[in-house]
Amino acid sequence: MPTAIYPGTFDPVHNGHIDIATRAAGIFEHLTMAIYARPMKSLLFSVEERKAMIEEAMAGVPNISVATYNQLTVDFARQLGAQVIVRGLRVISDFELEFQMALTNKKLDPGIEVVCLMTSQEYAFISASTVKEIVMLGGCVDGMVPPQVAEAMEAKFRGLDSEGQSSVRLVSLRD
Amino acid sequence: MPTAIYPGTFDPVHNGHIDIATRAAGIFEHLTMAIYARPMKSLLFSVEERKAMIEEAMAGVPNISVATYNQLTVDFARQLGAQVIVRGLRVISDFELEFQMALTNKKLDPGIEVVCLMTSQEYAFISASTVKEIVMLGGCVDGMVPPQVAEAMEAKFRGLDSEGQSSVRLVSLRD
Amino acid sequence: MPTAIYPGTFDPVHNGHIDIATRAAGIFEHLTMAIYARPMKSLLFSVEERKAMIEEAMAGVPNISVATYNQLTVDFARQLGAQVIVRGLRVISDFELEFQMALTNKKLDPGIEVVCLMTSQEYAFISASTVKEIVMLGGCVDGMVPPQVAEAMEAKFRGLDSEGQSSVRLVSLRD
Amino acid sequence: MPTAIYPGTFDPVHNGHIDIATRAAGIFEHLTMAIYARPMKSLLFSVEERKAMIEEAMAGVPNISVATYNQLTVDFARQLGAQVIVRGLRVISDFELEFQMALTNKKLDPGIEVVCLMTSQEYAFISASTVKEIVMLGGCVDGMVPPQVAEAMEAKFRGLDSEGQSSVRLVSLRD
Amino acid sequence: MPTAIYPGTFDPVHNGHIDIATRAAGIFEHLTMAIYARPMKSLLFSVEERKAMIEEAMAGVPNISVATYNQLTVDFARQLGAQVIVRGLRVISDFELEFQMALTNKKLDPGIEVVCLMTSQEYAFISASTVKEIVMLGGCVDGMVPPQVAEAMEAKFRGLDSEGQSSVRLVSLRD
Amino acid sequence: MPTAIYPGTFDPVHNGHIDIATRAAGIFEHLTMAIYARPMKSLLFSVEERKAMIEEAMAGVPNISVATYNQLTVDFARQLGAQVIVRGLRVISDFELEFQMALTNKKLDPGIEVVCLMTSQEYAFISASTVKEIVMLGGCVDGMVPPQVAEAMEAKFRGLDSEGQSSVRLVSLRD
Repeated sequence: MPTAIYPGTFDPVHNGHIDIATRAAGIFEHLTMAIYARPMKSLLFSVEERKAMIEEAMAGVPNISVATYNQLTVDFARQLGAQVIVRGLRVISDFELEFQMALTNKKLDPGIEVVCLMTSQEYAFISASTVKEIVMLGGCVDGMVPPQVAEAMEAKFRGLDSEGQSSVRLVSLRD
Repeated sequence: MPTAIYPGTFDPVHNGHIDIATRAAGIFEHLTMAIYARPMKSLLFSVEERKAMIEEAMAGVPNISVATYNQLTVDFARQLGAQVIVRGLRVISDFELEFQMALTNKKLDPGIEVVCLMTSQEYAFISASTVKEIVMLGGCVDGMVPPQVAEAMEAKFRGLDSEGQSSVRLVSLRD
Repeated sequence: MPTAIYPGTFDPVHNGHIDIATRAAGIFEHLTMAIYARPMKSLLFSVEERKAMIEEAMAGVPNISVATYNQLTVDFARQLGAQVIVRGLRVISDFELEFQMALTNKKLDPGIEVVCLMTSQEYAFISASTVKEIVMLGGCVDGMVPPQVAEAMEAKFRGLDSEGQSSVRLVSLRD
Repeated sequence: MPTAIYPGTFDPVHNGHIDIATRAAGIFEHLTMAIYARPMKSLLFSVEERKAMIEEAMAGVPNISVATYNQLTVDFARQLGAQVIVRGLRVISDFELEFQMALTNKKLDPGIEVVCLMTSQEYAFISASTVKEIVMLGGCVDGMVPPQVAEAMEAKFRGLDSEGQSSVRLVSLRD
Repeated sequence: MPTAIYPGTFDPVHNGHIDIATRAAGIFEHLTMAIYARPMKSLLFSVEERKAMIEEAMAGVPNISVATYNQLTVDFARQLGAQVIVRGLRVISDFELEFQMALTNKKLDPGIEVVCLMTSQEYAFISASTVKEIVMLGGCVDGMVPPQVAEAMEAKFRGLDSEGQSSVRLVSLRD
Repeated sequence: MPTAIYPGTFDPVHNGHIDIATRAAGIFEHLTMAIYARPMKSLLFSVEERKAMIEEAMAGVPNISVATYNQLTVDFARQLGAQVIVRGLRVISDFELEFQMALTNKKLDPGIEVVCLMTSQEYAFISASTVKEIVMLGGCVDGMVPPQVAEAMEAKFRGLDSEGQSSVRLVSLRD
């Protein structure tokens, strides 16, 4: 029975991630949620903060563990002995980039399978950048992230100067 | 370890189907290729012919079996005790309808998971209707279907009157 | 304050239609649900049956009326004195054809505006062909259509011979 | 300098086709507009009628000729000595199927190149099925097709019984 | 009769915006063009400059006013007493993000309706980033923006050092 | 017989570019690969480095030359006397932006034709940003770029501090 990893930046983890991880844990023997750690300017949370939030959110699912990595996803999967990379697909905007990633990973390591789950309908509109934007503008993200993640975002934005805030992509302003 | 079904019309089975089925059989304990049997005018092969072609093509994979059904896919999955429905995604045209099917199946039976594999690059342009069109017009489908399927299509088209031929969708004629 | 029409085949009306119509009736002074009547083989219900089902479903909304037509949508809108054509957009598959229709209608009558509402998330996966398929295969469509529409579909399919059944597009069988 | 073919059903030729053909004739030494002749129920015009309408519409462009064919497009291209297949892309709905056709043709004959031109903006919303629907419902297609094509469609629809009319796909009725 | 807001960054306003605003003003009692003011590095114009350009462009439409805001769009709509958020859809690239925004806004405030108009064909290819790129490279944007906006962009780019110029996304360079 | 330009940033040139250029050189009398030179922060290679890599990669194709430019693509095409702009389309993500660019270029200079070739299947998943990401993370890009380009990228990333590395878009981390 294969083991799987679910890679992402998880900046921060939201209810769509939690839904995919919980369902994948029901299919595979073990699931490692793998946080890409490389520091980038546009991240809101440190890798330690992201790891702590996921561990708290997934504490009730026994066959999920959390790890961080700084290499190609296929290399980290091989290092863990995982045969499957899990990805969630939202109907909005994800498919073609996920397909490109799947083909690229297949070329980099033909022995690792990319398996996609469709995001549940109630989480189809949630993305990490959307929830960050809403919190930054004072809106409520109940039902989109766990309560402790909402609090962590609020605390983070209160501590940011205006320079830092401007790096969040503002979905509602395309024109 | 979950068992899975891979539903389709398979009219006829092609190398893209075989690729998905073989890879899914490497992930799940058992895979049932489930042929939707309901007679429709636009089918080229009977359910018995479709079943025989799949059984020949998948003979080398021990944990794959073939079955036919005439009901909702989730009902047949439940009847078989399968927890997972497998679907292949091609980059071309499939995603939104598969998403709709996944959401619909989830609503019809929340306990069954739809899992998608990305079709390998070399089969990304193959569809059952494309191979039927090519054979109907005298073209070669080597590398797209197993040899016995190519022969079966050629025999079938030789036996069809012009009325029957016209029901095949002609990809190359959109304008 | 403009009046609007909401055109469709409504074969049959489903909860996604009802959602769009109810919300449009909150924006415009009056909304006419306009049933395209032209008999086509692939319809399940007669224009009278479709009209009766909509009238029952929308009885609680005072500024909605129901009509049938057999001409270009812009011509019928002009005949009613409506300035707006309302359309619902689902995230799945609709956008490009709706855009083509909007541009075409704009060219046919520049004085009529096409206004789109986004289908609510809980109805995003519903289409008339999906609900017909589910009922035909013995599935449950609670929450997708009003109860009386579910009953009408069940009665209709019981009365159809296999010839008639085969004309319904089967979403779950693409491969 | 290569010669090219521009294949299609052209049922009937419209201003979008004429735009693509005229521009392609400015790039390639010779362009053959190649009409797929195979009789299908859903065609409005016979192959002879379609050929006569194209010949009249393109009479002013000296390096364009018109032909009909009944085989794979790549086979007909090779028979004519053409190295290039020209296709027009509209922003609406065409891309993925054209890509599939291009990859399939490339596999069937690697020596033939598929070259795409983008349809001009003013014709981006025109399709053969749209113009047929508009004429069938009594609308005006000035600026969408040449005048003689509009007249031919009007004459054709006057002569059709209701059975024949119902085979035209009705863009405006999706719901 | 509802009032509406049309939110955006409008950096700068272009003829596609003007087309949508003018048509929306014909449908709703009053339209507020709402400029998102939050300073971001990638903006070319200050909020005061953007507001002045819109006021000049829309001076002939009596039921349009211009405002700026720094909060969630639904919160600003509610503050103004508007029941409708207007958005323009171009066939190019907009739909899925607009759908996400509409669903998110609906969750944040179910009482506010998002209504979409399709951008007219002649403006379908215009975006603020495209017109900025063309002006930056010395091209002509007649017919894409009002003359005073073209002049303002030219003046702005003459005053920018090379650092500033590099922040404009260059559409023509994807590869 | 027309001459053509194939514009891009080519940062760096990869096998998908080489495939398109080689095939376009078989259709047109002469092809100029035109490197957009304007310095941007997110580029990995200088214009001189990019030019040298293309010249080495295309040395075997006699009717291809390499040039750099800093203006609108249509202006550079006109300056070279080219009548055609060549672009490659990948099935992944390219179409709508290319369409927008084609319409914009057509408006800027109606005498220049944009012609698209479909990227061959084996290169459909390659992009400049993907190959940069793979090399940055220590992966192998054999078969995606010429060997000398792989070496140049490896040398470049060894020389970058962590600040510089973070500007590469990381395809595998969307969530």
